[in-house]
Parts: sequence; C-alpha cells; structure tokens
Amino acid sequence: MADKANPIRFGILGCATIARKVYRAIALAPNATVVAVCSRSLDKAQRFIADNGLPPTTRAYGSYEAALDDPAVDAVYLPLPTSLHVRWAVAAAEHGKHVLLEKPTALCAADLDRILEACGSQGVQFMDSTMWMHHPRTARMRELLSDPHRFGQLKAIHSIFTFCGDPDFLQNDIRVKPDLDALGALGDLGWYCIRSVLWAADYELPGTAIAHHGCMKNQAGVILSCGATLVWDDGKVATFYCSFFSNLTMELSVLGTRGTLHLSDFVIPFEETPVQFKFATDSKFKELHTGWQPLPSEHVISTDLPQEALMIQEFSRLAGSIIDSGSKPDEKWPTIARKTQLVLDAVKESIEKGFEPVNVTG
Amino acid sequence: MADKANPIRFGILGCATIARKVYRAIALAPNATVVAVCSRSLDKAQRFIADNGLPPTTRAYGSYEAALDDPAVDAVYLPLPTSLHVRWAVAAAEHGKHVLLEKPTALCAADLDRILEACGSQGVQFMDSTMWMHHPRTARMRELLSDPHRFGQLKAIHSIFTFCGDPDFLQNDIRVKPDLDALGALGDLGWYCIRSVLWAADYELPGTAIAHHGCMKNQAGVILSCGATLVWDDGKVATFYCSFFSNLTMELSVLGTRGTLHLSDFVIPFEETPVQFKFATDSKFKELHTGWQPLPSEHVISTDLPQEALMIQEFSRLAGSIIDSGSKPDEKWPTIARKTQLVLDAVKESIEKGFEPVNVTG
Repeated sequence: MADKANPIRFGILGCATIARKVYRAIALAPNATVVAVCSRSLDKAQRFIADNGLPPTTRAYGSYEAALDDPAVDAVYLPLPTSLHVRWAVAAAEHGKHVLLEKPTALCAADLDRILEACGSQGVQFMDSTMWMHHPRTARMRELLSDPHRFGQLKAIHSIFTFCGDPDFLQNDIRVKPDLDALGALGDLGWYCIRSVLWAADYELPGTAIAHHGCMKNQAGVILSCGATLVWDDGKVATFYCSFFSNLTMELSVLGTRGTLHLSDFVIPFEETPVQFKFATDSKFKELHTGWQPLPSEHVISTDLPQEALMIQEFSRLAGSIIDSGSKPDEKWPTIARKTQLVLDAVKESIEKGFEPVNVTG
Repeated sequence: MADKANPIRFGILGCATIARKVYRAIALAPNATVVAVCSRSLDKAQRFIADNGLPPTTRAYGSYEAALDDPAVDAVYLPLPTSLHVRWAVAAAEHGKHVLLEKPTALCAADLDRILEACGSQGVQFMDSTMWMHHPRTARMRELLSDPHRFGQLKAIHSIFTFCGDPDFLQNDIRVKPDLDALGALGDLGWYCIRSVLWAADYELPGTAIAHHGCMKNQAGVILSCGATLVWDDGKVATFYCSFFSNLTMELSVLGTRGTLHLSDFVIPFEETPVQFKFATDSKFKELHTGWQPLPSEHVISTDLPQEALMIQEFSRLAGSIIDSGSKPDEKWPTIARKTQLVLDAVKESIEKGFEPVNVTG
C-alpha cells in the first residue's frame, strides 16, 4: 500500500494554474509524491519545478510521451484542455499509469467511455478531480441526507456555481474556446452543479434533462451561462445554474420531506478549515408564525488536510492497493464520473434542441 | 393622518388562522385598531373576539355584508379563500372601505383587475398582504442591489419556498381544494417566490415564463409543487420552486455581476428581531484557490415592530392620508400585486400547456 516510505509517484502532465494547486495537494498527501513535470515545452516544465519549489530531482519533460515512458511514474494528473483528454488519458492508461483527470472529464460520454475502457482493460485506477467529493464535510452531509428521521425522502435539489469572468477571460481563456474546453461554463462550472445533484440523489440518474431558456453562448457557440431542470420518475426534481457572468457564487440546497441542507461554498470552502453547512429538521413556524422553531443548525467540520490533498490520498491509496496487492480498480469513481458526463451531455443536447426534454440514458 | 388618537378602524372579514396574526399586527401598529370581526357564523366571530383578547366593544358580525355596511369600519382585511376575493374585495371597495387583501390576490389577473378597478374608481387604497415587503431588511437589501459598485448588473435570481403538508393538510386544507384556493402551492408559496423575483428585478416584468417539468398536482388538478424559469430580453434569468412536499425552506439568491445576496428566511424571518442576510461583493478565490477573499458579509437588522405590523402601519398611513387629506391611493401596491399575478398566471398557463414558453403580457 502507498505510504510515506513508498508513495505513489505522480507525473503532472500540463502546467496549468490548477496544476500548482494539485502539486501542493500531492506534497501534502502522506502517500504521494511528484517525480515528473511535463509540458509541451521543456522550459515551461523546468520553470514550474523551480517556481513551485519542487525537489531538484524532479524530472522535467518536454513531451507528454516522455513522461508516460518513464517507469518511475506510477500515476498521472492531467490538467489539460478537455479536447486533449481522450488522447492523453488513453495513452496514460495504455502505459499502465493510473489516471487522475481534471473535469470535465471529456467532451462527451462516448469520449469518456474510451478513457474508461482503456483504464479498465489496463487495470489502472481512474478518478476525476472533483475535490469537494473528498472533504469530510461531504461525508457528514451524506450521513444526514441518508437519515430518514432527520431528512426524510429527497424531493428537490438546487445548485448554483458562477463567477464573473473579466473581458480578458471572456475573450481568451481556454474555457471559452471551441477547440479547447468546448463545454464552456457547463463543463467548467455546471460539472460541479450536476455532480452535486447526483451526489444528493445518491447517484440515481434522472430520467430527463430540460435546459432552461436564457442560455448564453459566445460567437463561437461556447456556452457562457446556462441552467437546467432534471426530473426523476418518482417526482424528484433538481435545477442548476452556471455562468461566467455573475459574482463568484456557490449555492447548494437539498430538500427532503423532513430536512433541508444548505451551504454556500460547496465546491471550494470559504476557508480550508473549519468549514460549515446548515441543516434543518422538521422546521416549523412558531405560534402565529412569528419565527421558526427549531432553527436550522450550523454544523462545523475541521480537517487536517485540504480537500484536494484528501483526494490525492484516496486516489493514491487505491492505486497503491492495485500496485502492491493486485486489487481491482475501484469502480465508484469511474461510475460517478460517467453519470456526471451523461447528464451534462443531456443538458447540452437539450440546449442544442431548443430546450426540449432529453432522456438521460446510461 | 392616521395616528394613535385617530387610528384606521379595521374590520376583519374571516376568522382564518392568519387573521389572528394580522389582528396582533393591527394591535401593534400605532395607527390602526380593530373595530369589527366578521364570519359567516356570528358565533365564530364572537369566539374570535373572546379567544384573542379583543376589546369587548369590538363588534361581531355574522355576515360580511353587515360589516361592510358599518360606517365605523374604514378598512377591511380579507383573509378569505382566493375564490371569494373578487366578490368581497369589490364589495368592500364599493362600500368605500380600503382593502388589505391576502395573497394570492385572485385566481387570475382578470379577476384582480376587477378588484383594482373597483378600488380605483372608489378612491380606496389597495394592498396585498405580502408582509416581508415591509421589513426594514427588505429596504436595506434593495439599497445594496441598487448599488452598481457593490452589486453591479442583475443577472440571476433563484427563490424557493416549501413546507411539508401533513396528510390532513394534503387532503383537507383549503389550499388543495379546486373551489377555494385553486392555485394551490403556486398561489400560496409561489406567490412569494414570484414577488421576490420581481422585487429583485426592481419590478421589471420578465418577457417569458416557462414552467419546469416535474410539476405535481392532486386528483382535482390543484398544483402541489411546481417551478419555473423566467427570462428577460436582456438575458436576466430567474428560477423558482414551491412545494407542499418538502421541509419548510425559504431561499433567495440574487446574483449580479459584482455581488451576491443570499438569505434563508425571506418570507418569515427566523426570529422577529434581529434578522440577517448575507451579501458579498467582488468575491474571489485566494491564491491557489484555498479559500475565498473577501468572505460574504453578514448584515444584521433590528426592528421595533414585526414586519406585519409595519405593513399595517404603512397601509393605515396611506388610508389615513386619503381619508384626512383627500390624497389619491398609492399606485405602487396595486401595480406590484398585478405584476405578481401576471407572472403567476403565465406560469400556470405554461403548466397547462405542457411546459411551453408563455409570454408575460401586462
């Protein structure tokens, strides 16, 4: 098993800003280390190593192939533009590397399936880099949502993730470019909203997705803001909204017959530790409706490691178990990545069809 | 002008539970008093007076007509089922009484127009009983939303109001009966959501309403839960959700290019005083996205009177001004009631048309 003496050795393929955050997470995780940094330019890789204080023994590569050929690399973290995911995630798996892939995982579920098939046939672990899944707050909230006495039956979910891109972002960022991150705000932000909805629904896929009117695209057709309603056969509903045009906002509300969960920082907590969320059970009005009784409770959770380091720790634990004990890859992470991508695909199709309902099919 | 020595004299027409809350509000307001209580049964009116500690001089009436014929009544508060609003609000206006009407104001805008025309032609004040409009918190939030430096341009609104009706409520309450409050959850709860959306949009009507799939009705066709998207021509969007099936929940999120407003008790505050809301300006991530900087601010507002007493005070001030100085009725309240009803009508029509987009026409 991966541990301090025998850590999972990461190669970072791509030097995007997010790679700096994940490098820090790998450094913090007790069972992982970075052995290689790779960019299309050797100079950029070398600069990343120097600028971020990586050990001078870290290998710099000027091509992704070279890193994949390095037998000292157990696993790769891929922060590349979405359009490059299929090629490099498949190549990594075929080189026997475990794959930690930035979100959105692919441009469509068919592309993701090629990645998952490669990982499956090579017996390597796949995980998408959705960090908040790994926070102990998420586990604590899940416990409450699973409690029939405190939450009851799930009825409705609403999720928002927006930030306000400046003119330079809206003109030049890879997330507004049709040949790079072609899913735009739906891929960059909606991914988290859809994941939060699926998480709240314990990963039961909705039957139908209907995008909301009012979707905004740029001239190249990349989505800059959109929303959708997701409907389950048993009457559960969810809505979400994502946009590059509004102040940084993250809201998640989960409503059950007996309980309500709410938090305003579900993707990235306001502070690394401690973090909060609000949970209410059997909320009622006081006599004459002069107030509420009981009030929602504020729950506070502390963590020794930030959520991204916990993600690296979990990924490395799974990869280590495969390397050391010949375990099979954990199916949970590929499965929920695929479900997220399926819903995202259905929302995109609904937008393209003029906001018609689209079946979500597995 | 109405004041302590010369208060607006209310007749309460109907002894619903909400009438007890509004009686307390009239008692608390410095410029109003209750002089008559009226029910279809004299006994019920007498019991209301005794049970709620009204002065023994309060007149009890066993018919609404009798109360309207009483020259000592300046104004009426009408907590009757929606299906009775047109008849009794019009009759009240025709008797020269100022009209404070429970929400939803009518079954449709055409019905409300009959009420507003009667009030207009008689020169009496009309107001719908949407209490949170009168809280000083609402005014403070409006100030922030109007500040281009702190909020920027409005982009998106999301509003939720739900509570969990027990089996008796879902079977027997007037709010699930097609001949009484036929608008169901849309009228009882969606009214507040739509009002909050219009309030946030400074009462600019959306161009289109599209109800969300997943609307639930009872066997009689009364809406028990529903949601909708509202779209403005300039790209603003709003969504709301209302339901009789989820734990008591009120969320309001208003997103601008530079700011975000959020509160979880917009209709009825958690406590009468003090009350809170959260507001964030220019929210950003810290370096490496390890947290937020700045954090949303918590604003705290105190009030001497509960919001329903402030509503009575404002209504009485307007009625007093008409009675004493021959002023014209204030147009603001009829106007925003009508806009709320127009949007509500469009959402209902969209549900009836299978979730097709419906133009909101004034």
